Formats: sequence, C-alpha cells, structure tokens
Amino acid sequence: MDKRYEGKAKILYATEEPGVLLAQFKDDATAFNAQKRGTILGKGQINCSISTHLFQFLERAGVATHFLAQTAPDQMRVKAVQILPLEVVVRNIAAGTLTRRLGIKSGTVLKHSLVEFFYKNDELGDPLVTPDHIELLALATPEQVDRLRELALEVNALLSGFFERCGIILVDFKLEFGLEQMPGSVGNLLLADEISPDTCRLWDRQSLDPYDRVLDKDRFRLDLGNVEAAYQKVMERILAQPV
Amino acid sequence: MDKRYEGKAKILYATEEPGVLLAQFKDDATAFNAQKRGTILGKGQINCSISTHLFQFLERAGVATHFLAQTAPDQMRVKAVQILPLEVVVRNIAAGTLTRRLGIKSGTVLKHSLVEFFYKNDELGDPLVTPDHIELLALATPEQVDRLRELALEVNALLSGFFERCGIILVDFKLEFGLEQMPGSVGNLLLADEISPDTCRLWDRQSLDPYDRVLDKDRFRLDLGNVEAAYQKVMERILAQPV
Repeated sequence: MDKRYEGKAKILYATEEPGVLLAQFKDDATAFNAQKRGTILGKGQINCSISTHLFQFLERAGVATHFLAQTAPDQMRVKAVQILPLEVVVRNIAAGTLTRRLGIKSGTVLKHSLVEFFYKNDELGDPLVTPDHIELLALATPEQVDRLRELALEVNALLSGFFERCGIILVDFKLEFGLEQMPGSVGNLLLADEISPDTCRLWDRQSLDPYDRVLDKDRFRLDLGNVEAAYQKVMERILAQPV
Repeated sequence: MDKRYEGKAKILYATEEPGVLLAQFKDDATAFNAQKRGTILGKGQINCSISTHLFQFLERAGVATHFLAQTAPDQMRVKAVQILPLEVVVRNIAAGTLTRRLGIKSGTVLKHSLVEFFYKNDELGDPLVTPDHIELLALATPEQVDRLRELALEVNALLSGFFERCGIILVDFKLEFGLEQMPGSVGNLLLADEISPDTCRLWDRQSLDPYDRVLDKDRFRLDLGNVEAAYQKVMERILAQPV
C-alpha cells in the first residue's frame, strides 16, 4: 500500500478513492515527547473502535469529522485533510502538565473548562501558544482559532455527557483538526486524528483511589500497570452506549 | 528605615507619608530566574535615573504610573500599590526566550507587536499564561487583562518613539502593574516597578554587530562585557531627550 504518513500511533495509506485515506491504528505507545516508548497489546484495535464510536456520536450531534467508516478492527477510512499544527487541549479537571506548569493541585475541578493550544513541534517540545503566537507563526488564522475554541468546547460538552453515561469522568483531552481538501469544501474544519484513552484523561467514577481510577495512557506514562485492561474496560463501556 | 519588601533589584521602605514608599535601586544583578548573580557597578543610580525620566515621559503622555519623585540618585518615592503577579511582556523583534520557545530566528521583526503574560512565580519559573489561565488562577480579572494589554501597547508605542529619538531600538520589554491603594482611587491600574536596561532589550541603531549593539542586561546574561558602559550610554542618551 502507498504509505502517506506514519505517526507515533497511526499510519495513513492512500486508497483507490481520491481524497480518502486509510488509517491503520498501531499498538505502539509513546509518552513524554517520545522519550518513553512501548507497546500496549490490542491498543490499535481498541482505539480504532473507540474512535469510530465517538466520531459517529459526534457526527450525529452535528460535529464535522474526518471519519468515514471502520473497515477492520484496527483500520478506518477517513477524509484526507491538511492537519493544522496545533494540539487543542480541553481541561475540566487539573491533571498532568497543567499542575506542574501552574502549581494547581491535581484533581482540582476547574470553574470553567479551559481551552489551550500547543504548537505541534517535537523539536520544540510542543510549546503552549497564545492566539497571538498562532497568528505570528501563521499556524492558523484568528478566525480559525476562534472556531477551534468553539468546536473544542462543543465537543467537550458532548463527550463529557457521553462519558458520564459510561461511568467515566472526562478529565481532559487533546483534539486535532484538519482542513478539508475535497473540491467544493476546501478549507472546512474537520475534527481529525483520534479520540481514545491515548488522547483523553479518563477517570472511573466509581473509584476514589487516585491510581486505581486511571483508565487512560497515564497507566502507561506512570507505570501504573494493567494498561491493556483499562483500555479494554473503556472500550466495553463506550460500545455499550448508543451513539 | 522600615523595610516593606526586598526584591532582586530594589528595596521598598515605608515613609512618613501613608500610601507612599521609598524605592531604593540596587546594584545587584540576577538572570535566569536568579541562577546567575552578580553586581553591575552604578546600576542602582543609572536605573533609578532612567526610570525617573521614562516614568515622567509616560505620565506627561497620559499613562498613570506609581512614580512620584526622584529623591536621591538611586532612590525614588512611589505610590504604594498591590502588584499584580504578572509580567506583561511586549515584543517588537524576536529575541531571548521567544526564539527558543517558538523556534523564531533572533532579530526577526514581528508583523504585529506581541503582548505576552507571565505568571510571576519563581518556583514555577515564571510560566507563560493565557487570559484563561489568569482568570483560573485569579491573578487578575478579564477586564484587567484587557486593560493591561491596551496599556502595554500604548506604552510600547510611546517608548518605541522615545528610544528611536535616542538612536536605540526597543526590541522588547517587561512591565509590571499594580493596583492603587489610596482612598478614592483604590483599584486604579498604575504602571509600577521600573523601566531600565534591566527590563528592556535595547539595541543600538548605529551598530549592526549582534553582540556589539546590545545595550541591556543581555550583556550581563550572556557575559558580553562592558556592562556598566552600556547602561551608562543608555542613560546619557535618555537624559538628553526632553520628556
């Protein structure tokens, strides 16, 4: 197959159809800007299935995504997009880098959901950027930044409710967006990449134990063990919910 | 004297007059979050005189500052304020941390002047913060943040013109603001701290050499030599300009 792009968690292949790519989800796991590497057995299939379900849910709620169809347990067809070099992070509860950067205690419920932008640049360590930096670096237009913020908060409201029905707290998550390339709809912002325990912090509502409750990539990052079981649990609860 | 506060570059003393403090400028120099320490001979007097002249210039142009009067070469009387824990940075040309953080080449002229906010917190290394972070940490209200940005750009326009008349390029600078405490004007935003080669990047317009042209604390930070002479040159050129 004609490989177009290989990232840390997915490979994108060209298909027979122009403007359509095949995303192959990998079991490879990386953390801390790829300084830590490993494998989470079954992650490719689990994250592909979770992302499929969540993209379908969001599409039905009116959010435009790159998702077309799941074609194998670890493969989905997606619209080709020009990915914006931004990570759009939404936080409902303080965890991870936010706590270290600003000295906020992990687990603090934020009064308002917080939207942050990071410049996707491994060499620079994905630095935090403001809308002014984004304009300066020409990473996106000011109008796109406003729209990204709106979309991120809309996705947060939808996903927070969905995960609540799964008995899971959506602590924070990272989104990536791309510009549609198809003639007639060039430049439309589409939610792209994936939505999975690799890109979300998910805490079990039933558990109060700060380590036991973790159902996401922090189990891998922090060597908490039972990584595969946690991903499996998230998938089962998500797939049990109607989209 | 009744010492109220001692910072890296100044000591504040109470005076006989309520709401008025005496700022004593020190020769002590620090850089890289105080990991580098030294002395710049005569800096206290030079920075006090430069700040006096620039505060007077800004006051006459309509910017409210904490400045009252210079009472000795290295002392000024200032209004007591409650300092906001924010460093407001304005950049006209890329230099310093901006180049390292975002991979922009030093010396790049920015299309628009850039305003950045940093949380004044030595323990956290003064992290960059967005208006959302500022609200979350309750460092200032959203209205104050908007006003700080306006004031910073206004000061930038005024100082850029002033320094141009001195044959100096205002590359970037850091401002601090405080809330007035006097009955009847509590909560007014006043420009505070100092404006000096310690807080501005200043490049000589005549010199093209990237090291030779530096007339500010980068001479100390980067061990470029002739630190005192550069500060002295800045003072002479500034004091020669009418306020």
